[in-house]
Amino acid sequence: MSPAAANSPALRSVAVQRRGVALEQDVVVVEEPLEIRLDGRPLVVTMRTPGDDEELAAGFLHAEGLISGGAGIASLSAVAGEREAPPAGKQARIRITAFAGDRVEVALAPGAAGPAPASPTAAPEREFRATAACGVCGKESLDDLDQELPPVTPVQCRPALFEELPDRLRAAQTLFEATGGIHAAGIFTLDGELLCAREDIGRHNAVDKVIGHFVLRGEVPLRDRILVVSGRAGFELVQKALMASIPAMVAVGAASSVAVDMATAAGMTLYSFAGRGRGNLHVA
Amino acid sequence: MSPAAANSPALRSVAVQRRGVALEQDVVVVEEPLEIRLDGRPLVVTMRTPGDDEELAAGFLHAEGLISGGAGIASLSAVAGEREAPPAGKQARIRITAFAGDRVEVALAPGAAGPAPASPTAAPEREFRATAACGVCGKESLDDLDQELPPVTPVQCRPALFEELPDRLRAAQTLFEATGGIHAAGIFTLDGELLCAREDIGRHNAVDKVIGHFVLRGEVPLRDRILVVSGRAGFELVQKALMASIPAMVAVGAASSVAVDMATAAGMTLYSFAGRGRGNLHVA
Repeated sequence: MSPAAANSPALRSVAVQRRGVALEQDVVVVEEPLEIRLDGRPLVVTMRTPGDDEELAAGFLHAEGLISGGAGIASLSAVAGEREAPPAGKQARIRITAFAGDRVEVALAPGAAGPAPASPTAAPEREFRATAACGVCGKESLDDLDQELPPVTPVQCRPALFEELPDRLRAAQTLFEATGGIHAAGIFTLDGELLCAREDIGRHNAVDKVIGHFVLRGEVPLRDRILVVSGRAGFELVQKALMASIPAMVAVGAASSVAVDMATAAGMTLYSFAGRGRGNLHVA
Repeated sequence: MSPAAANSPALRSVAVQRRGVALEQDVVVVEEPLEIRLDGRPLVVTMRTPGDDEELAAGFLHAEGLISGGAGIASLSAVAGEREAPPAGKQARIRITAFAGDRVEVALAPGAAGPAPASPTAAPEREFRATAACGVCGKESLDDLDQELPPVTPVQCRPALFEELPDRLRAAQTLFEATGGIHAAGIFTLDGELLCAREDIGRHNAVDKVIGHFVLRGEVPLRDRILVVSGRAGFELVQKALMASIPAMVAVGAASSVAVDMATAAGMTLYSFAGRGRGNLHVA
């Protein structure tokens, strides 16, 4: 692995056997839990690749509608967890939290949205609803899914551009070559200039990080930007993009049915299977 | 698409433009929310590909430790949600639940585990903890992550077998060819015979479905079986496999750091990047 990658907290060497004989060191992506705490209370845990944790937290809070911009945050700080050495040999009980316990502490500014208040009719045990890093799983009921999403103002750009963006994103990925197993998300201008790229083992985390980058700079909404993702276009990524008013999304992988429905309803340009000359522009 | 795929609730035709000119119909994987309700209360929502919903619910409950086998379930039934037509044109507000509202109602048998009781010191608002379909995201705090995982009894099988299994799983995928964007999980014997394969847009759902298939048949633990997954080996999939006492897991993609740590600690055989003759057997 490259010297830069060797020093990254996102990568680790592990012992492997290949073809049954050779004992080699291989590089894997680090995947560790991050707890996001809001105003002193636990809000959510996400498994993420360490790095840019502040951006991840800011992007997550923005996607969930808990802040509308960087001004909604009074303070935000990443705190490294106590770390035990991975246990040696076979264990009778496996504790995930032994491996890591990083967290980000966020305090909301006065007037920021905060967690949704309990409905007057809700049972007491559901007063505090967990929100979920991927936007869906972890939510308790279907009603929890509904979210006010703003439509976007459609943009025009050179049609062939969408096919070129995946390669430009890939060129900016520092961790991919070392591991072959990490997602990326990038924010581009309408002319195809890359403004920010972030990597994570989780697709939704990569998107939260890259949007969070602009949240912390006070540069959201991103009305004349393109979001490019290395994987498929699931609906939860469309949702996150819409929350940031991003009008165009390009995915290397397939789009899902609800992703198409939501993008169409919002007026968002959605382009799937990009980068191999056979991409799909989804139309109503 | 094949006639079988055309009738699948898992697939849908959508309008696309390709290379800026032709208007074609392309097939996308359906991704819709499924609410799992436990003893009349909402437990969790997962975005999944319709089909085998009962298996998905059973596998999810098993992975979360809420049931220890099929005997823990008194009744389990899938209920189709009311479905509105996707909205035409641009919308001012986008409601995900307008697209679908399927659910599975589960009643636990007397004596089954059920949701973990509140700790005496927990604040009232956290009495009912949402569990999450992927095993992590949606959980509120790091403490929620810890789970008692049984170590497994290591198994022996022909070393070259692991390289062959991805192709056998792929051959059993009915939805992949139509869309190019769906995950699969399969349960194999130690001789490499495929016993069950399931597909889903979510990696963790595909694993829940295939393990749930055996939960409903009363055939868990799966002590002499191999789990094969079409994507990467995240820790949450290792966790689900360990809950079913599966001793070996083969992934087409990369393994994450915590997946390696957990598999090693549990005595599980973990094989990543399978199928192209350069797979990695992870060793302690």
